[in-house]
Amino acid sequence: MSKKTKNAISPTRAEDYPEWYQQVIKASDLAETSAVRGCMVIKPWGYALWENIVQALDAMFKETDVKNAYFPLFIPLNFLEKEAAHVEGFAKECAVVTHHRLTQTENGKLVPDGKLQEPLIVRPTSETIIGESFSRWISSYRDLPVLINQWANVVRWEMRTRLFLRTSEFLWQEGHTAHATREEAIARTRQMLDVYTRLIQDYLAIPVIQGQKTPSERFPGAEDTLCIEAMMQDRKALQSGTSHFLGQNFAKASNIKYQSDQEKEEFVWTTSWGVSTRLIGGLIMTHSDDDGLILPPRVASSHVVIMPIIKKENDRETVTSFTESLAKELREQTYHGAPMRVELDTRNIGSKNWDWIKKGIPIRVEVGPRDIAENSVFVGRRDQSPKSRQSISREQFIQMVPNMLDDIQNQLYQRALQFRMQHTFIIDNKDDFYSMFTSSDEKTIHGGFAKSFWCGSADCEEQIKKDLTVTIRCIPFDQDDDKGSCIYCGKAGTGRVVFAKSY
Amino acid sequence: MSKKTKNAISPTRAEDYPEWYQQVIKASDLAETSAVRGCMVIKPWGYALWENIVQALDAMFKETDVKNAYFPLFIPLNFLEKEAAHVEGFAKECAVVTHHRLTQTENGKLVPDGKLQEPLIVRPTSETIIGESFSRWISSYRDLPVLINQWANVVRWEMRTRLFLRTSEFLWQEGHTAHATREEAIARTRQMLDVYTRLIQDYLAIPVIQGQKTPSERFPGAEDTLCIEAMMQDRKALQSGTSHFLGQNFAKASNIKYQSDQEKEEFVWTTSWGVSTRLIGGLIMTHSDDDGLILPPRVASSHVVIMPIIKKENDRETVTSFTESLAKELREQTYHGAPMRVELDTRNIGSKNWDWIKKGIPIRVEVGPRDIAENSVFVGRRDQSPKSRQSISREQFIQMVPNMLDDIQNQLYQRALQFRMQHTFIIDNKDDFYSMFTSSDEKTIHGGFAKSFWCGSADCEEQIKKDLTVTIRCIPFDQDDDKGSCIYCGKAGTGRVVFAKSY
Repeated sequence: MSKKTKNAISPTRAEDYPEWYQQVIKASDLAETSAVRGCMVIKPWGYALWENIVQALDAMFKETDVKNAYFPLFIPLNFLEKEAAHVEGFAKECAVVTHHRLTQTENGKLVPDGKLQEPLIVRPTSETIIGESFSRWISSYRDLPVLINQWANVVRWEMRTRLFLRTSEFLWQEGHTAHATREEAIARTRQMLDVYTRLIQDYLAIPVIQGQKTPSERFPGAEDTLCIEAMMQDRKALQSGTSHFLGQNFAKASNIKYQSDQEKEEFVWTTSWGVSTRLIGGLIMTHSDDDGLILPPRVASSHVVIMPIIKKENDRETVTSFTESLAKELREQTYHGAPMRVELDTRNIGSKNWDWIKKGIPIRVEVGPRDIAENSVFVGRRDQSPKSRQSISREQFIQMVPNMLDDIQNQLYQRALQFRMQHTFIIDNKDDFYSMFTSSDEKTIHGGFAKSFWCGSADCEEQIKKDLTVTIRCIPFDQDDDKGSCIYCGKAGTGRVVFAKSY
Repeated sequence: MSKKTKNAISPTRAEDYPEWYQQVIKASDLAETSAVRGCMVIKPWGYALWENIVQALDAMFKETDVKNAYFPLFIPLNFLEKEAAHVEGFAKECAVVTHHRLTQTENGKLVPDGKLQEPLIVRPTSETIIGESFSRWISSYRDLPVLINQWANVVRWEMRTRLFLRTSEFLWQEGHTAHATREEAIARTRQMLDVYTRLIQDYLAIPVIQGQKTPSERFPGAEDTLCIEAMMQDRKALQSGTSHFLGQNFAKASNIKYQSDQEKEEFVWTTSWGVSTRLIGGLIMTHSDDDGLILPPRVASSHVVIMPIIKKENDRETVTSFTESLAKELREQTYHGAPMRVELDTRNIGSKNWDWIKKGIPIRVEVGPRDIAENSVFVGRRDQSPKSRQSISREQFIQMVPNMLDDIQNQLYQRALQFRMQHTFIIDNKDDFYSMFTSSDEKTIHGGFAKSFWCGSADCEEQIKKDLTVTIRCIPFDQDDDKGSCIYCGKAGTGRVVFAKSY
């Protein structure tokens, strides 16, 4: 079997999309399931990707005057009890710490010992524990706004897990801000959604739709939840980031008050917003193909791999010296302000080229004696077919790498945008709507996005969910002027919303 | 009371060193105790410091080919059971998760529910969980070495906690490597100690002594523990980083084997090494004075604060425009390759200058109308007396800032080195040794470091610990040729070791 005529990943997307997803992760060595229920191990190739996402996003936060801090991993139960909707949302899926030591039994078994007076939960999110600090930090309007972010691990006990998309422990950032006025808090909620949009579109090359969640899909305790939704290649939606306007709910639960410039005591207005390692799942499902992972250059774990091809010992010195100096020269270049990330793979194995295709590195460079004789390199781009490699002179290649990376970045974005547009439908007829979401090849495709009118009733939303497992992903900010009637009940619609199956 | 003639921190170091430490943290706004037992909140000024330490150290790791990854927060009890010494060391102080949800009782109270089949502990360190991955990642000598680091939070349940120095949850990095040979693992253990030494001396400006721990002070499960020890201003020692050669102990516990190039199956040799937010405690106790925190410029949360002084509304525009352009110009400069960090404090309060002294920022710049008339700025350095400020022309100041920062960095290091030398004594007489550690002003000073001979017996070590609460901090690598007899029993010594009280 020649690998060049078959696909590297089996099954393909068309054959079994969920299994293809797992196999892409395995073949690219991004992550693995661990021996601990529901927790993943993020391997170096996956963690480097996360580090690049963190770095880009953290810089954007700091541009908007947000400061990083760190709050406790544990939350006392009485903190959680303070906000009713919050309890509802998180109590069913949290890790509870009840003891603070272990004792060894006679047969060597360890058993919990030292019972805590009050159990603690491992944070599923930190509104309540950060609220407790805010209540001490804030006393006057002069202390506002408070703009805080933390990079942290959180735990939400999941029964059915999937690498990156749904794990019991995941890495994320959570921003928490407090403001003197409702308007300022609402503006910050929107501002951070725009920051996420920039990250996800410009760095992860994933086009998104910005909008508002319906009340039934809101964050537990929020007054309004804004979100960005992306379409995966199986046409399902992935919620890729949320920003919540919390009104005064958490201010009241945690007693966060300030004295206004009118010397009146008021509750603050808070927001919270977060993205997580789930973004990596979205990146995989947006760009990868049947040969494996495809990494957008702006966040790629690495940009270029150089592969010396040495078939005769005689050639070793020439090829080694040529490739080492090429790697050095590339590493001295920058790409968007940071040093270019370059791998030099000197392993002497036949599968080298395919290994890097599966790992999704944007540019592959093969160099053998014949290339060196012509002072050229043999270049493959991950956004193009594995076969379409081309010979480029060494000097020209070095010069063109940053543009080539930008070009790959743009191609990936345009391709994903195209895909979403092709699978987004304006639907104003109930039968069409139902048949779109009940096609026969359910396993791999899921209809896409339907932009249809909705009357605003939670009942209609619930019925559609029951019938089709389709939900309203968002009420897009971007609305046309057209009018129509609710796709379910036929009453006057308040606007078009995006319906889809989702992760 | 004029603050300029009194100290900003009360009590002073001489009056009550432990309380002075807490007050420095409070006055500088680095961190606070949280409502959660033993856990701290790291506030923005403290977290920025940690971020700078992380960034410097992470770059050094990467230079030595270490790659970052991430492993689960939870460890199953049966993993811990595998390594006997490890159980001994950590079982008594760990957070145990026993349930995975909460149920609300009729009176609104939340109680644990959903009992786990096997309890999990929150990682106190990750040898066993990372070992489990290594056992799957490694099969051939070609897979070695594996060089992994993770940045993470860990939990060790502490009964008596102190901000940064001893908290139930802390942030750290833990490196874990696996090697084909004993020699290579030992070399890596030492290499990482050298990396820590570079970080702590060159960035944190803390002089350290490199050495080896005695068997009784080793990491649970290690064959050899290397460490660096620093002297605090109360003359106690602070262990500032450790690097462990684990032999094949954890390889055997986790069954990490590889096939050698001779096609023999062998256990790997592993190392682990870590530093934590404890370093911040060491930094505070090394440099700070009775006016508050002093930050070494290389890791300082910020480098320069500019304080516009506006006493008449008439002056507002001139002063504002001058200080804003000064801030802009400074921010465009770099300090050791990164943009200079500059604060502009426009608050209209009298305590502004003292606030920044207490926060330890290296350079303070005051600018009022008179300075502007002379095109100059009024500059104070944190390593000098608050009174010794000087007027410098604007152009000259901008040009000299990087050198001034380097000079402060060097001053802090030299001052700390001087202090350690003054309080390190060669002692060869038992009475002198005992009287050195039993001085009458116990509360604030603790004798210092005694370099004395030791016979190598755990009994002598134990006796001294019982009598004086003094331990062997390390057996320094740096040994003179002189010979002598054990400070406790009088038998032939194997070399001079460092005795001290410690944190």
